[in-house]
Amino acid sequence: MSLLTVGTMAYDAIETPFGKTDRILGGAATYIALSASYHMSKSNIVSVVGEDFKQSHLNLLKSKGVDLEGVQVIKNGKTFFWSGKYDLDMNTRDTIDTQLNVLAEFNPILPEVYKDAQYLMLGNLMPSIQQRVLDQLPQRPKLVVLDTMNFWMDNFWEDLIEALKGVDVLTINDEEARQLSGEYSLVEGAKKIMAMGPKFLIIKKGEHGALLFHEDQIFSAPALPLEQVFDPTGAGDTFAGGFIGYLAKTDNISFENMKRAVIWGSVMASFTVEKFGTERIAELTNNDINERLKKFMSLVNVDI
Amino acid sequence: MSLLTVGTMAYDAIETPFGKTDRILGGAATYIALSASYHMSKSNIVSVVGEDFKQSHLNLLKSKGVDLEGVQVIKNGKTFFWSGKYDLDMNTRDTIDTQLNVLAEFNPILPEVYKDAQYLMLGNLMPSIQQRVLDQLPQRPKLVVLDTMNFWMDNFWEDLIEALKGVDVLTINDEEARQLSGEYSLVEGAKKIMAMGPKFLIIKKGEHGALLFHEDQIFSAPALPLEQVFDPTGAGDTFAGGFIGYLAKTDNISFENMKRAVIWGSVMASFTVEKFGTERIAELTNNDINERLKKFMSLVNVDI
Repeated sequence: MSLLTVGTMAYDAIETPFGKTDRILGGAATYIALSASYHMSKSNIVSVVGEDFKQSHLNLLKSKGVDLEGVQVIKNGKTFFWSGKYDLDMNTRDTIDTQLNVLAEFNPILPEVYKDAQYLMLGNLMPSIQQRVLDQLPQRPKLVVLDTMNFWMDNFWEDLIEALKGVDVLTINDEEARQLSGEYSLVEGAKKIMAMGPKFLIIKKGEHGALLFHEDQIFSAPALPLEQVFDPTGAGDTFAGGFIGYLAKTDNISFENMKRAVIWGSVMASFTVEKFGTERIAELTNNDINERLKKFMSLVNVDI
Repeated sequence: MSLLTVGTMAYDAIETPFGKTDRILGGAATYIALSASYHMSKSNIVSVVGEDFKQSHLNLLKSKGVDLEGVQVIKNGKTFFWSGKYDLDMNTRDTIDTQLNVLAEFNPILPEVYKDAQYLMLGNLMPSIQQRVLDQLPQRPKLVVLDTMNFWMDNFWEDLIEALKGVDVLTINDEEARQLSGEYSLVEGAKKIMAMGPKFLIIKKGEHGALLFHEDQIFSAPALPLEQVFDPTGAGDTFAGGFIGYLAKTDNISFENMKRAVIWGSVMASFTVEKFGTERIAELTNNDINERLKKFMSLVNVDI
């Protein structure tokens, strides 16, 4: 099934307790597309970059079957840049610098050939832009997944609430679920959020795994306990890519299959945090991934 | 198999965002014995109370098959009292008052008939007292489980390290695992802690479930997402009781069976938090418990 991803392509400078990088490849769409590529031999992407975006990074995406016709390259523009520093616990981070650059004027335009998308991943982005993509599709995709974050809740609340109405699956973290719902209990919060539009809600809890909610059903996926979380940047996007990639491949949006997709998302995210940026997710073999899946399943396997 | 529990019996005054109690039944040994009673029709307990300890509370324990010969009742003494207040997130609490009372002079003395204990649960208590119980056993039990907390790490580090040497299973929370090991990564921390004595380590993560470590194996048990956590007091003790109760009943200390025991511990703990103190755990039916177990298993069940 056809997969379309909308989101940022970026350069990030990251500092963690383990090291520091300068301007490495990042952006939600980048992580999502790379992660999904292990399930989908081809997918489409809508994004924007500046002239400084390296050909080698475009080539990396192409080599993974990602079509770049929907990526606008802005003449004399500079690519979106984010710089952040993680605390020792890796759960909190400070933004040091955000340069919107070409993202400030981003008007997503879908190539004609993208318009039959069956699976649509709206990566973390300004909600009105996410909405504008959905509005350009002549027919509603089979599944729309939206990822967002606290920044949009703080500053674009109404746009976000509007965008949520057209969404099937929302992915956010536990703090964001509390902020969006105004409920401390995730179970109570999930009910309220599902009443806003999404029929499925995924709450990402980082090192504590993820919860999938649908009607009165809940699925709890573990995170793989790791010897070292090297750099958490992009873990949520990688999760989203593994999740929707698996769903698009299997073309089955039942709750049972979504549970599998959550495991696949978690498997992929467990790699991203092992190195800086997209480094690990870009180099994986199918064997790496299958071994990791086995590890995940043995982690929760109990015969009771 | 015979089960012996050592720990506090107490009165607690608890304040949560949902309400407030005055002097209700509490204490590690109380929660452990009540929780284990659903697996073990009889068990033994070593503890100390004052003359103010209510006959109705002794009767409750007796009604669950708990032998009280090992409970010292100190004439003119007052029972250990703890008072605390939980924050809205229920993960942090402030101790308002601690009155050690009879606990200050507690010298545990094992009745002769307790000395063939095969399963020993050393509930959260001063490490030197936990040690003194172990020392009174003419032969080592088949399994020794020790529960402890940050307070003993802060103030009785050497006694705790000494006690750990004789222990098979240690149960602590994630923060305590980090404090005890000096490692932020729980995987790295678990290795260091298992080198201190315990062959098995259980890290309790509250609403995020629990991890069981043994050699290079890891098992991840979920917590049941609850609509409301009413009062977390005693959840860890209840977990320990369900855990060791199941192991003692099945008399099987393999890693596979410990995984089941962790699920049982989690099932029991999920009840405790639903009401104040021991209220919920004291009133359960086997049907309640079996239904809850099914809920737990459906939470993690995935066919991949």
